[in-house]
Amino acid sequence: MTLYFEDLSIGDRYEVGEYTVAKDEIIAFAEQFDPQPFHTDEEAAKDSVFGELVASGLHTLCLSVRLFVAEFVNREDGLANMGGLGMDDLRWHAPVRPGETLRVEVEVAEKNPSESHDDRGYVEFERHVYTDDTEVMTVRSYNIVRRRSAVE
Amino acid sequence: MTLYFEDLSIGDRYEVGEYTVAKDEIIAFAEQFDPQPFHTDEEAAKDSVFGELVASGLHTLCLSVRLFVAEFVNREDGLANMGGLGMDDLRWHAPVRPGETLRVEVEVAEKNPSESHDDRGYVEFERHVYTDDTEVMTVRSYNIVRRRSAVE
Repeated sequence: MTLYFEDLSIGDRYEVGEYTVAKDEIIAFAEQFDPQPFHTDEEAAKDSVFGELVASGLHTLCLSVRLFVAEFVNREDGLANMGGLGMDDLRWHAPVRPGETLRVEVEVAEKNPSESHDDRGYVEFERHVYTDDTEVMTVRSYNIVRRRSAVE
Repeated sequence: MTLYFEDLSIGDRYEVGEYTVAKDEIIAFAEQFDPQPFHTDEEAAKDSVFGELVASGLHTLCLSVRLFVAEFVNREDGLANMGGLGMDDLRWHAPVRPGETLRVEVEVAEKNPSESHDDRGYVEFERHVYTDDTEVMTVRSYNIVRRRSAVE
């Protein structure tokens, strides 16, 4: 059963899957979108503030969106997402290293029906990304979610 | 001459290049990180709130980081960036369509020396992404920037 705007309550938490990020993938992503030596070159990374090769924070963000979409929006009983509006409070708390497994949780932080469109509402999700017990990233994202009343 | 923390003044603006985004690239990015029909399937996109295939906002963000790094950090007289801390106020104002050219500008919005590390400071950049005259995305990013006094 699809998750519509009406089905979400503030405080609801959802596990949205895991992903293990390989070294080759970290380097390939960084070469394309964030070509800094501490993300692309193991030797050069030793002289950086990180002391070793680490994933681009942008890569961690992208993987968290991939899990949100693939495991929470696109699943059979998934979120009736109509689009994204923006994000706030994106923070990288700890580096992500090759071979580490990201785990993503989302919490419904706020929801408001649209005043101009009766088929949708606005939902603020707080997204947490963990590797084992370490919280590596947090972000608030704003999504447009379809109302059940628009399809029934 | 490298741009160190001391060389930046609040209000300074920098043009950090352009990038034309192709349809194939929009679809390939979305299949990997944001697999929603309005980003991956031209036919399905016609029924979405966008009415046509549009780039994932995450893709626009990634391309703006690529330009920031490739054209502003990695150039010969580039920014002495030591890493990123996070972002706020990420907003997508208008969709980006296949074949459109993104143009990125950054402005120094705030700077503060680190109190615990005398080799670095914190700089807040306001980043604007345009296609022609339309502002399609804005974001504030927080970077750690090396001080000139640490290398002289």
